Amino acid sequence: MLDIGIIGGSGYTGGELLRLLSCHPEAEAVCITSRKLAGKDVTSVHQHLRGICDLKFESPTAEEVAERCDVVFTAVPHGTAMDWVPALLDSGAKVIDLSSDYRLPIDVFERTYGITHRAPREAVFGLPELHPEVAKANLIGNPGCYPTGAILATAPLAKAGIIERAIFDSKSGISGAGIEPSETSHYPNLAENIRCYKITNHRHVPEIRQELSRLAGNVKVSFTPHVIPAVRGILTTAHVIVKEEKADIIQDRAAVSQIYEKFYEKAPFVRMAQVPMLSNVRCSNFCDIGFEAERGEDRLVVISAIDNLVKGASGQAIQNMNLMMGLDETAGLWFPGGAP
Amino acid sequence: MLDIGIIGGSGYTGGELLRLLSCHPEAEAVCITSRKLAGKDVTSVHQHLRGICDLKFESPTAEEVAERCDVVFTAVPHGTAMDWVPALLDSGAKVIDLSSDYRLPIDVFERTYGITHRAPREAVFGLPELHPEVAKANLIGNPGCYPTGAILATAPLAKAGIIERAIFDSKSGISGAGIEPSETSHYPNLAENIRCYKITNHRHVPEIRQELSRLAGNVKVSFTPHVIPAVRGILTTAHVIVKEEKADIIQDRAAVSQIYEKFYEKAPFVRMAQVPMLSNVRCSNFCDIGFEAERGEDRLVVISAIDNLVKGASGQAIQNMNLMMGLDETAGLWFPGGAP
Amino acid sequence: MLDIGIIGGSGYTGGELLRLLSCHPEAEAVCITSRKLAGKDVTSVHQHLRGICDLKFESPTAEEVAERCDVVFTAVPHGTAMDWVPALLDSGAKVIDLSSDYRLPIDVFERTYGITHRAPREAVFGLPELHPEVAKANLIGNPGCYPTGAILATAPLAKAGIIERAIFDSKSGISGAGIEPSETSHYPNLAENIRCYKITNHRHVPEIRQELSRLAGNVKVSFTPHVIPAVRGILTTAHVIVKEEKADIIQDRAAVSQIYEKFYEKAPFVRMAQVPMLSNVRCSNFCDIGFEAERGEDRLVVISAIDNLVKGASGQAIQNMNLMMGLDETAGLWFPGGAP
Amino acid sequence: MLDIGIIGGSGYTGGELLRLLSCHPEAEAVCITSRKLAGKDVTSVHQHLRGICDLKFESPTAEEVAERCDVVFTAVPHGTAMDWVPALLDSGAKVIDLSSDYRLPIDVFERTYGITHRAPREAVFGLPELHPEVAKANLIGNPGCYPTGAILATAPLAKAGIIERAIFDSKSGISGAGIEPSETSHYPNLAENIRCYKITNHRHVPEIRQELSRLAGNVKVSFTPHVIPAVRGILTTAHVIVKEEKADIIQDRAAVSQIYEKFYEKAPFVRMAQVPMLSNVRCSNFCDIGFEAERGEDRLVVISAIDNLVKGASGQAIQNMNLMMGLDETAGLWFPGGAP
Repeated sequence: MLDIGIIGGSGYTGGELLRLLSCHPEAEAVCITSRKLAGKDVTSVHQHLRGICDLKFESPTAEEVAERCDVVFTAVPHGTAMDWVPALLDSGAKVIDLSSDYRLPIDVFERTYGITHRAPREAVFGLPELHPEVAKANLIGNPGCYPTGAILATAPLAKAGIIERAIFDSKSGISGAGIEPSETSHYPNLAENIRCYKITNHRHVPEIRQELSRLAGNVKVSFTPHVIPAVRGILTTAHVIVKEEKADIIQDRAAVSQIYEKFYEKAPFVRMAQVPMLSNVRCSNFCDIGFEAERGEDRLVVISAIDNLVKGASGQAIQNMNLMMGLDETAGLWFPGGAP
Repeated sequence: MLDIGIIGGSGYTGGELLRLLSCHPEAEAVCITSRKLAGKDVTSVHQHLRGICDLKFESPTAEEVAERCDVVFTAVPHGTAMDWVPALLDSGAKVIDLSSDYRLPIDVFERTYGITHRAPREAVFGLPELHPEVAKANLIGNPGCYPTGAILATAPLAKAGIIERAIFDSKSGISGAGIEPSETSHYPNLAENIRCYKITNHRHVPEIRQELSRLAGNVKVSFTPHVIPAVRGILTTAHVIVKEEKADIIQDRAAVSQIYEKFYEKAPFVRMAQVPMLSNVRCSNFCDIGFEAERGEDRLVVISAIDNLVKGASGQAIQNMNLMMGLDETAGLWFPGGAP
Repeated sequence: MLDIGIIGGSGYTGGELLRLLSCHPEAEAVCITSRKLAGKDVTSVHQHLRGICDLKFESPTAEEVAERCDVVFTAVPHGTAMDWVPALLDSGAKVIDLSSDYRLPIDVFERTYGITHRAPREAVFGLPELHPEVAKANLIGNPGCYPTGAILATAPLAKAGIIERAIFDSKSGISGAGIEPSETSHYPNLAENIRCYKITNHRHVPEIRQELSRLAGNVKVSFTPHVIPAVRGILTTAHVIVKEEKADIIQDRAAVSQIYEKFYEKAPFVRMAQVPMLSNVRCSNFCDIGFEAERGEDRLVVISAIDNLVKGASGQAIQNMNLMMGLDETAGLWFPGGAP
Repeated sequence: MLDIGIIGGSGYTGGELLRLLSCHPEAEAVCITSRKLAGKDVTSVHQHLRGICDLKFESPTAEEVAERCDVVFTAVPHGTAMDWVPALLDSGAKVIDLSSDYRLPIDVFERTYGITHRAPREAVFGLPELHPEVAKANLIGNPGCYPTGAILATAPLAKAGIIERAIFDSKSGISGAGIEPSETSHYPNLAENIRCYKITNHRHVPEIRQELSRLAGNVKVSFTPHVIPAVRGILTTAHVIVKEEKADIIQDRAAVSQIYEKFYEKAPFVRMAQVPMLSNVRCSNFCDIGFEAERGEDRLVVISAIDNLVKGASGQAIQNMNLMMGLDETAGLWFPGGAP
């Protein structure tokens, strides 16, 4: 049994790690930290875990956590993870960072987040479907929720070299904004509504661009996010404009299917779907992908659906853990979502 | 044209007063106050009023407001209205207070809200269907949202002397909790949920008890509120236990109907309905009422539906204004809700 | 007072026409038809109109309706309106058709809807912001809901000649799918979900293309609709790719603002907004529009918000009626939406 | 490994059985029937199970199912289960019936459902917290969703002999109404709404009355259900009027707590909670219970929260299966809900 630590466990991703680990056959949460809530029952915040999890929040040092744990998840805000990660690694723990501190090259990180990186370390971008080297990593930069949906939707096309530009129009549940009440998450402001925000400059763009460019060289990437009246899930509508000389390919549905099937043939959590919907992936680690070409035109629409807290955060983190620790990739994650 | 002032206009009831007044044929908002937002456009908060309302928030004295206005609505928190009302009245304005400061006898108010009343004045409880003396009042204590739904549902039965006890189980939209984000109004905490709160001791109980007792002498009143995933509306399910000797009456549907029809024969905003629902009263000043007796038993279930911000607050306040100022009771309020 | 007829009044657009007309100062619904429901109270379907509307559904001939009415709205399915319109016109009524039968040239209509047009007549495309000739028309083809949002969002740019291609990613409330329950509108299938449908070939595309091309010559138009968990409203996110030689213009916010302000300077229902949202236009006839350019790139994102049943259908129809009949364009429509 | 059959698998309870069994360590669904869908993939209906469940719907005889299965769940409409159950039992299967056919004495069943019972068999009422004899049963009548919430909320008080009357005001998610679209489940009719239905005579009343009377002799039971804008979950607000001579007990919070804790000391799925909410039990088999006495009065309010499809149906059925087959009561069910 692996002993697991969670740094910063009072938010949604921390709670979701606990939920998922509570059913994991080979890993167990043994330490969960929160400076603010140290000494309190974990279930004082994550009430749905009553009867299942009897841990209390603690406030230990990184070294103490590393000593007690085989793997540590850092679920703290960006800019804070970098204060934990080096000490955890140096004390022998493997680390999966759910913040954005280890997803990007330092210069891109600093430009995007407007802060200086105080503790660069070598890390693997933890999207296992694209990065088999996850298995050998000691530090994972777990991808952002939007990039997970956007990259999985289009990586096969990027690798096939057919993308001229990709415009991602994403629709997210509000849990991505976190556990703290805000004007945006105020029920009367979101119910029966939809809000476009950070219309052209969301911080997740560089992750998407980095991964698609790695596969395809120069790809023009745009991204516009919205929040919808839903708690969990991200639906990404990728409007892919294909290169002029490749326009014929997308008109051949079987050919496009084959590109996806081949790319994901060893990816247990990617499912091709007629109509990807949040309801089919809710609370699960699946990513559903579907597509349709505009007849006679150069536009291919690809749609992906994930649960932002699972495949978009904590589930993917555990998938990475499984691979890093030599477990079955699906251990503790092989269950369907909770439809209806 | 009446000139109207609104003290405390940055919240939902203030916004709703502006919305309703913008269509009123004989009254116009000319002054809206907010200390915090003085100088800012009203539409910086109430964005839906852009193009319709070009007022700015002001921070005048009560005397200044009274000088400019015929009628003033006080839409400030309980305990604050009493700092405005006397000066407004003394300066010649008629006042409709949407807080709880002028709804109850002083001793009941002080016991219920735990504060000393600093400025008692004679006021009429502004439920026009029960209080024709509204027409002659200078100061109205506009009823709470829950009491409006509960009292209208059962007043005819109280007057008919058949209630032994009434248990009100109410379900409210979250706008009743106000414009400020909170844990309760956080979308992930309310969507797909329902929350029972202040289970046995909500502060609105004394208003309900006061009005029913006025009609019927001693009536046993209990009240339990819930918030549901809806923005507007209160559905009240009144479980009425009838006096043993009156049990036969409720088994006669026509007899009960007649009790209601007679009681409300001059009440334009009360509609008898098969199935009262929030969707039928949303954004309107109507109160829909329906009922069903448990066959062979002593329980009559009465259901009422109102929009908490209209008939439960700002609409009722304008209805009171109409009556106080000798206008048609329905002026500016005679429109249907916005279904679907 | 104008006498108004509504052909096919049992659906949402029929109900919305009645709601809006009930507050119109110079027009009154006098006849509403439904073969299926003839003889029944209008309020048996449109329950929110109880107390406001005491009409019964009728089943008259077109000639009978025309005789009694000055203006007739046809709110029947596409392919059915054409069976009513000629007789209504020939009997002297002015007609506003809310179906798609009179929005497109015949050949485009037939290709798009797969049916033969049995009764072509000259009609004006009823988007008054673009078509002042509405004022002189006898027959209006009232635009589709999606086209209204998409065209208003981008028409000023089209006229300015800067659009290379426009990709419309629209998110609609489910009321657009009508009053009849279906798998898509089944609550468990829509709540906490979002569904992309008719991904590349929705029937509204030709309307959008027709109007933008009229302004700009050849514009590449794509459209992908979604339904979101909301009843009313359409948010359209227009990803506009600008012509290479015009890329500089969109980087100048003031210049783009001016293009919009000039284009809509006489359009009372178009409001420029920082963040267009459904909540600000709900139940109103406003169209809110905002935009943001991607820094240094050739993409301008324009967002529009309308209420699909008002500006996207019945409200726009009444706006057309006002213009056709020489009334103030805003008569009966000058009220804010129902936020929160 | 137990082989499991599901008769009538195209609805929500069938899908939920498959979801839960897919994670059960000692049971596996091997046969799922649907006459209408025979030959089709189970995932054509239950899309969220893609990749997890590769069964096809079948249309076998009861005998064939019984031959292949150790335990059979009948998830068909009331009145239909009785056509399957005898043959299944006679062929050696243990049967858990999720319909209402085997929950009540025949005369009560026939009076309540208005049909003749064609195949009475001895059955145990499958609420394991009250019926340890489940462990020895061959046929279980799995309780209704509302009765599960109502009975668990009040059984300890009934046994303690303190209930004079209990008025259950329940609020259910719409999934209880099934997978077929209807007027009630039409999104525009439920969103932002709440609907009271079968106000005094819902068919679940006899189950509640039967179980409470079994514990307490004569208890006056009333029940009024509502549907709220939620997919899963039932919150039951039980207004318990206590016997005059027991009124003191409920004023002693510790005493009431003790009554509950003792009654449920061996019930793993019952959790006492400050504020029971749907969000804490969603997708799980837990029943959360909280209470508050009205100070100085004879009313105790008890609130219970369950997931109607899990503890209210399929989860409870599997809990029964576990007990019948000598497995750990929590096997395959020991996981938290999916909050947020």
